[in-house]
Amino acid sequence: MDRKRVGILDIEKLIEVKRPVGPFVLIPKIDVILDFHPEKEIDEHELQEVIHSAIEDALREEITSIDSFGASIVKKLLKKTDTLKAEVKMEAEYVVYRHAPVSKQRTQETYKLISRAIGEEKCVKKMIGAEVVGINSCPCAQEGLEEYARRKLKNFSQRDIERIIRSIPIASHNQRNISTLLIEVPEKYNIEAEDLIEILEESMSSKVYEVLKREDEVEVVIKSHMNPNFVEDTVRKILIKVVQKYRDLPGESVVIARSESLESIHQHNAVAERVALLKELRREISSAST
Amino acid sequence: MDRKRVGILDIEKLIEVKRPVGPFVLIPKIDVILDFHPEKEIDEHELQEVIHSAIEDALREEITSIDSFGASIVKKLLKKTDTLKAEVKMEAEYVVYRHAPVSKQRTQETYKLISRAIGEEKCVKKMIGAEVVGINSCPCAQEGLEEYARRKLKNFSQRDIERIIRSIPIASHNQRNISTLLIEVPEKYNIEAEDLIEILEESMSSKVYEVLKREDEVEVVIKSHMNPNFVEDTVRKILIKVVQKYRDLPGESVVIARSESLESIHQHNAVAERVALLKELRREISSAST
Amino acid sequence: MDRKRVGILDIEKLIEVKRPVGPFVLIPKIDVILDFHPEKEIDEHELQEVIHSAIEDALREEITSIDSFGASIVKKLLKKTDTLKAEVKMEAEYVVYRHAPVSKQRTQETYKLISRAIGEEKCVKKMIGAEVVGINSCPCAQEGLEEYARRKLKNFSQRDIERIIRSIPIASHNQRNISTLLIEVPEKYNIEAEDLIEILEESMSSKVYEVLKREDEVEVVIKSHMNPNFVEDTVRKILIKVVQKYRDLPGESVVIARSESLESIHQHNAVAERVALLKELRREISSAST
Amino acid sequence: MDRKRVGILDIEKLIEVKRPVGPFVLIPKIDVILDFHPEKEIDEHELQEVIHSAIEDALREEITSIDSFGASIVKKLLKKTDTLKAEVKMEAEYVVYRHAPVSKQRTQETYKLISRAIGEEKCVKKMIGAEVVGINSCPCAQEGLEEYARRKLKNFSQRDIERIIRSIPIASHNQRNISTLLIEVPEKYNIEAEDLIEILEESMSSKVYEVLKREDEVEVVIKSHMNPNFVEDTVRKILIKVVQKYRDLPGESVVIARSESLESIHQHNAVAERVALLKELRREISSAST
Repeated sequence: MDRKRVGILDIEKLIEVKRPVGPFVLIPKIDVILDFHPEKEIDEHELQEVIHSAIEDALREEITSIDSFGASIVKKLLKKTDTLKAEVKMEAEYVVYRHAPVSKQRTQETYKLISRAIGEEKCVKKMIGAEVVGINSCPCAQEGLEEYARRKLKNFSQRDIERIIRSIPIASHNQRNISTLLIEVPEKYNIEAEDLIEILEESMSSKVYEVLKREDEVEVVIKSHMNPNFVEDTVRKILIKVVQKYRDLPGESVVIARSESLESIHQHNAVAERVALLKELRREISSAST
Repeated sequence: MDRKRVGILDIEKLIEVKRPVGPFVLIPKIDVILDFHPEKEIDEHELQEVIHSAIEDALREEITSIDSFGASIVKKLLKKTDTLKAEVKMEAEYVVYRHAPVSKQRTQETYKLISRAIGEEKCVKKMIGAEVVGINSCPCAQEGLEEYARRKLKNFSQRDIERIIRSIPIASHNQRNISTLLIEVPEKYNIEAEDLIEILEESMSSKVYEVLKREDEVEVVIKSHMNPNFVEDTVRKILIKVVQKYRDLPGESVVIARSESLESIHQHNAVAERVALLKELRREISSAST
Repeated sequence: MDRKRVGILDIEKLIEVKRPVGPFVLIPKIDVILDFHPEKEIDEHELQEVIHSAIEDALREEITSIDSFGASIVKKLLKKTDTLKAEVKMEAEYVVYRHAPVSKQRTQETYKLISRAIGEEKCVKKMIGAEVVGINSCPCAQEGLEEYARRKLKNFSQRDIERIIRSIPIASHNQRNISTLLIEVPEKYNIEAEDLIEILEESMSSKVYEVLKREDEVEVVIKSHMNPNFVEDTVRKILIKVVQKYRDLPGESVVIARSESLESIHQHNAVAERVALLKELRREISSAST
Repeated sequence: MDRKRVGILDIEKLIEVKRPVGPFVLIPKIDVILDFHPEKEIDEHELQEVIHSAIEDALREEITSIDSFGASIVKKLLKKTDTLKAEVKMEAEYVVYRHAPVSKQRTQETYKLISRAIGEEKCVKKMIGAEVVGINSCPCAQEGLEEYARRKLKNFSQRDIERIIRSIPIASHNQRNISTLLIEVPEKYNIEAEDLIEILEESMSSKVYEVLKREDEVEVVIKSHMNPNFVEDTVRKILIKVVQKYRDLPGESVVIARSESLESIHQHNAVAERVALLKELRREISSAST
């Protein structure tokens, strides 16, 4: 298991990404880590210079996505050093325009784009991903509240109780949720960040928005309560959408989904995570749907 | 307005606080800042030594509270230096045992104790405070949800609708809230941290707990929805409780109350704060209650 | 002293700033805080909507600087609400291209731009600033090391000792330093961010760079040791440069300079700060130079 | 590779650790993560209750070390759930008294204790570790400075130059360094936190102290320059000391050493890490020393 790793953390670079919809600017934070033979002696100064020159070289090329930029740095590191394994991670703020659900007022939302690239010998693997903030309502507390409501409404007829329960959202606790999705993609395969963001947002109880008129706020709360989720449910929903959306991705692609809730009824956070090959997810999800 | 300040941030010290209920251990993070005449030249090394020796001297005395410990450091700094104003801030983790609301299961909860001491010439003022995490439910969204419920229930009689609305908690969004209270106290005046924590917790929609059985969780959610609060409401409730509880504190005592919500329907946080003299609060609150 | 404040923290917006040298993109984190009469009741939802509409209105105008953008939001808040005092703070990552000191290799450096705008009644004040990371070497330890060197060299002649001490940099401890400058500016007054960054960098022992060839690294270390600074020295040097550079700024302009060192020989940080009117600084600095 | 993980992050508990030298109090932050069969459905509420009851059960036993406390929680989780793998991580502040190197003045220093326990089927593995802040001086810049010094001293004889270079510490850049060591230990094996801290501190260029008189500060700077280290050197030195100190630990024990420098000449951090079995380290280090 012997492994020796050396690198630089928290490098920041401004890059311009050329997308079919037009170019945009990102300032990713970049971590670069290289594995070496345990007995190799490293000149750290020299290594830092090589890492920076690899990044500078990649900056001079046309950048079409954050994951291909990472992969390009890794390729250069494999050539310039005798690393056994080179890894480049990036995270960058990303702004998208949205419309509030009812008022349709335009809002600006911020997301995180993520990429990871890993190279060993001549093989470079890369992942593209996103991190999204949304809201999750708790299904367990909601169940408890429904029982409570039934008891409190016991003077109504059974039919009326069912009508009431079906008509209005049953209260629960809800909280800020942070969910992440990373998908391994082949060199030329193109995944739109917007699609990852949509998958993540639709797997939470509701999207959140910077600006909400009163009618929007009510809509978000109703939607969130009609659609309760444990962090584990959010992870499962993300994975189902990935399987449905990316039918042409190779089965060997690694998929990582993670969801963390800043629990409003506790000081601690709840977290769920799944790491699987796409073919494993395809098998499980197709068998579940039969 | 000319002001020159020099200091040290993030000093950590282990202290044993002797309280009537028994001693307990804290590891406060300490910031020390001294104001000097703008044209005075400072030997930073010497100043650091003096600051540390003031802290060491205060450590050798019996410590009866985090605020008196801070005040003691300030007094020593006033003697050892020609500072115009010396300020010491502390924050420390503090653990309290609680019982869950229904199951009565014992849980350990963590709070932050805070103190500030400021000395000018021979006069030292000190504040004691706490920071508490709880849950706040939004009154505005709840109002919107109530209107929605009324529309959805429109086939029921007006009387039935009122009964339903009164019987069951109307859903809203709720979120982790962090509230803070700081009160200026005279030298020998003793404020129990537990009282500050209670004031803060009772001013939010509900306390939160590390461990909740299902029946406890339902109770927390019901309580939180029966008691919705904007951050501004939480601040007002804290201040009313302070006025009611500390009748013998001097009117000149400064009170700071602050509440911040990690909004579950937005990525941003909402915040409210009030800084006032106790006599101002007394006047306002007594006039409001007549 | 009675003060009641309500606001929103951590709003993020993408803005395009039009500068004579060409436009650039920033994603500032924005905090908005409004003071109200203590007895005024606030509808937090409504207030959030008003804050966002003020920001959206300001976004629709041409943005020529981060400080004028903040001032524009404040003006709109003064009109749209009955706030007694409106405050808008911003911080944004900012990338500048540099050349290493000896090799002249191009590097990308990241800084923080800062602005603050405060409005009361019809008067809006605004500040523009920057935060810069650099290196500071300690003058006190260096003095001690020089004495040590003199003792160790005692078999040399006094003249030789002086030649040696003058020829080679005497070791000291040095560390990452974070320095900040904020200057109040009249409405139409234009301060270039690059100038603030330069003032800050030249007030530390040396600038730092993302990429340094060996000859650059040696140069940075020599420069840093030839130019030792306590945090307090850095603050003084910043202020002297401000006085020299901005001769036409009104004397009533507030200036804030701050320097914090991540001490390499301690776990804690050392900090110095000065808040003064420009006319106070002018008087002090001109008298010091006579 | 299919893996599904669910857990809770940032639980805080106050524990009293009984050591031969006397008991002490810690407030570890605890993360608990459980792996389940990918198709198993999880009731998150129930799982949270089980996790808490496992922690509470472990709290009721006598705690003799932070790693055995973690292992005890893992054992209970293996019994109470059908997890495939249970993992418990802890970090806690830890205060130790020290004496400054020359003045012998007593200072209080803060460290982080770390533990990890992982259970699969009936087998529980545990690691104990520490994180320490110190100072590292750069050997590469020092070499460059030595060449510079030789050039500047060229009017001296070669012999004199050598005497000068040998007599006084050659300047370099130095910076705050954070190093970490984790060692896998058998159930009953006892490792003293103080020993881990010592290994880490002696592998950096010098220890750091909260309080330093002038003579101490000079000593720390001299020591740090006489003993320059890249992060990779610090990692190697840690591992050599581990091999020498823990001769009776099983060869299969995993050892993780990591060192990160907050580079004073860059904004980014440099990092090195090694993960290896003790037997691999023994082989390498004994062959290196022959």
